Amino acid sequence: MFEIIGDGGVTSPKGFTAGATYAGLKTERDTLDLGILFSDIPAVAAATFTQNSVVSPSVIVSRNRLSNDTHRGIVVNSGCANCSVGSQGVLDAEEMISLASKNLDVSPDDLFVASTGMIGVELPMALIRQNIGNIKLDNNSGSDFAKSMMTTDTYHKERAVSFIHDGETVVIGGASKGVGMIHPNMATMLCFISTDANVDKLFLQEVLSDVVNDSFNMIDVDGDQSTNDSVILLANGASETSQINKDSDSADAFKEALSYVCVELAKELVKDGEGAKTLVEVSVEGARTKEDARKSSRAIASSILVKAMVHGKDPNWGRIVMALGSSGIDIEENKIDVFISDIHIVSKGIAIPYYKDAVVSAMADKEVHFKVNLNLGEYSANAWGCDLTEDYVVFNSAYST
Amino acid sequence: MFEIIGDGGVTSPKGFTAGATYAGLKTERDTLDLGILFSDIPAVAAATFTQNSVVSPSVIVSRNRLSNDTHRGIVVNSGCANCSVGSQGVLDAEEMISLASKNLDVSPDDLFVASTGMIGVELPMALIRQNIGNIKLDNNSGSDFAKSMMTTDTYHKERAVSFIHDGETVVIGGASKGVGMIHPNMATMLCFISTDANVDKLFLQEVLSDVVNDSFNMIDVDGDQSTNDSVILLANGASETSQINKDSDSADAFKEALSYVCVELAKELVKDGEGAKTLVEVSVEGARTKEDARKSSRAIASSILVKAMVHGKDPNWGRIVMALGSSGIDIEENKIDVFISDIHIVSKGIAIPYYKDAVVSAMADKEVHFKVNLNLGEYSANAWGCDLTEDYVVFNSAYST
Repeated sequence: MFEIIGDGGVTSPKGFTAGATYAGLKTERDTLDLGILFSDIPAVAAATFTQNSVVSPSVIVSRNRLSNDTHRGIVVNSGCANCSVGSQGVLDAEEMISLASKNLDVSPDDLFVASTGMIGVELPMALIRQNIGNIKLDNNSGSDFAKSMMTTDTYHKERAVSFIHDGETVVIGGASKGVGMIHPNMATMLCFISTDANVDKLFLQEVLSDVVNDSFNMIDVDGDQSTNDSVILLANGASETSQINKDSDSADAFKEALSYVCVELAKELVKDGEGAKTLVEVSVEGARTKEDARKSSRAIASSILVKAMVHGKDPNWGRIVMALGSSGIDIEENKIDVFISDIHIVSKGIAIPYYKDAVVSAMADKEVHFKVNLNLGEYSANAWGCDLTEDYVVFNSAYST
Repeated sequence: MFEIIGDGGVTSPKGFTAGATYAGLKTERDTLDLGILFSDIPAVAAATFTQNSVVSPSVIVSRNRLSNDTHRGIVVNSGCANCSVGSQGVLDAEEMISLASKNLDVSPDDLFVASTGMIGVELPMALIRQNIGNIKLDNNSGSDFAKSMMTTDTYHKERAVSFIHDGETVVIGGASKGVGMIHPNMATMLCFISTDANVDKLFLQEVLSDVVNDSFNMIDVDGDQSTNDSVILLANGASETSQINKDSDSADAFKEALSYVCVELAKELVKDGEGAKTLVEVSVEGARTKEDARKSSRAIASSILVKAMVHGKDPNWGRIVMALGSSGIDIEENKIDVFISDIHIVSKGIAIPYYKDAVVSAMADKEVHFKVNLNLGEYSANAWGCDLTEDYVVFNSAYST
């Protein structure tokens, strides 16, 4: 039970401000590449990070801060991943935090840091030193903050929702970026979420990890996994309502609202996938375990040949079955049902007669839905992918040059 | 110590004949789509098959025959994978064997069967019944046999080598196909190998499994894994030399010669990868274990973003490090060296100054070599991939339509 806040974002919850500036990290002028999200009062934080073993020092610095009791905000840059740059990367991430903390008049321990962009290039600290002071924080700059972390994204991604707790309105807002190097676990992206709910820190982490598992960890653009993924959630309690913990009446409402924000932002990343024109939702039902449903839906959403067939509006369903078989879960081929946008294509593992033009036509939509019923159990999961287009190749064959 | 036989193939070893015909399974007339490889005398066999859990009934039928003591040959069709067609697929595979066995005057138990092409379509048995009798076997039709299994391959792939055993010349020949749905384990392909060596059946299987692990299981075109992969090796002893087993003086020579045939054929599959213009060899050295070297070299060769950068001749080495980090092996980032075609790019995890134009120019070759030294141990492995081009997307977005 939640309400969607039109044009909402990270500054929709009470007590959060944000801002951004152009510091010169991107080559296009008049873009934003350095941003800050700030809570007026101390907030508890939860976070999840990339599982790549090559990790940006920005991630290392943020991960080390997570165990602190409270936090005040996040400083983020695009244009440079601050990755594969040796120990200088940690010094630069710490300095970026230190510069921001002086402007905000808080302790450096209170801030997280995140970076996204080219790997193997040092942060141009002189530009950051020179320009970070230009960031003005206010209630209306959530979108600027969202824009400041864009790399190859074609638009910025924001969502906010509200729900009622203790008879009062509580708000969750989020911003995210990342449309390439996207693959579970976890999707290659940054997402920052703010809420004015008052939430127990342990419960906050538990809910965030669950929600990320069913949202950002279920999307794929290109099978590649980045070095800088971070999802950071700040809960500052500015709604002045009672604490939400695992035993609260509102525990489910909070999780449902957070889940909506994360699933919607995750889907936006895939929709805006490099070169993508079509969002594919893959639902696997009737699995023996939740993990089986997750693994197999992700395998289908990640398959390059499935992505190519979506681009071609080609109901070449053998590729769906091939990807399902590659996922490593136990299946019984003679029980499998496959549907493309609700049209029944395969029954008990065998093609059934269907009107091909109807499927081709259904696949011309901006969003295509593949459903596989394994008919083995009670578990289900959704994963999201996008089509693979010529534009992806053109784009990614000349990124650094 | 082996000699390469120019224009050699599966009929280069003594006692093997082959042939092929057009049966009407492919739409282009004047192509070949049904072939037979035959040993004049009983041969022992070894084989490896796809690890996808959706498996073509042709694979099931062949797998069930592998435990027989001896075999005489293989019947193969392209144009139809005989997969996801229910129990009819087993009946059809058995009938294809039965039809061939009558023509060859051997028992149906003596033959393997393999199919490749579209998934989800039943074998057009009427056409196979009508045309299989047209196959004429002789010593000069190894290339026709190789052509009869081509699907999206642009050329047929054959290799043969000889080595000296007991003072006599022993020959190994092979033919393979498969340029899409290629990913370890195992690469999506068919490969049939003949030898006139007299080899112990257990040793034959052991050597083949090892060699496949370092050849066909180390290549990637698109990350997708097919339902029909088969490598089948027949050893008929027609060289009339003593038996080769694990204790023979020639055990290593046999493995080395077989390895050459399989690695060369595996590289041909990648070179001819759908839309591919460049072969990439990825060598990982200095790994703690062989499995670490295998996993990480494969991860780099399989990365879509690495493939795209090869296409763009773009020395965006951060993607090599990203893929290495995604491979799941333990690394120490500050020990990694990276070389592109022998040019040192990264030292101890950090970019070193290099002349970028020289790297761009080296990457313009038909074959590009990435070397990563983990500097952690003594193990190494090679994997092979190809570039990702617009042509791959164009091609695969309209395959069935």
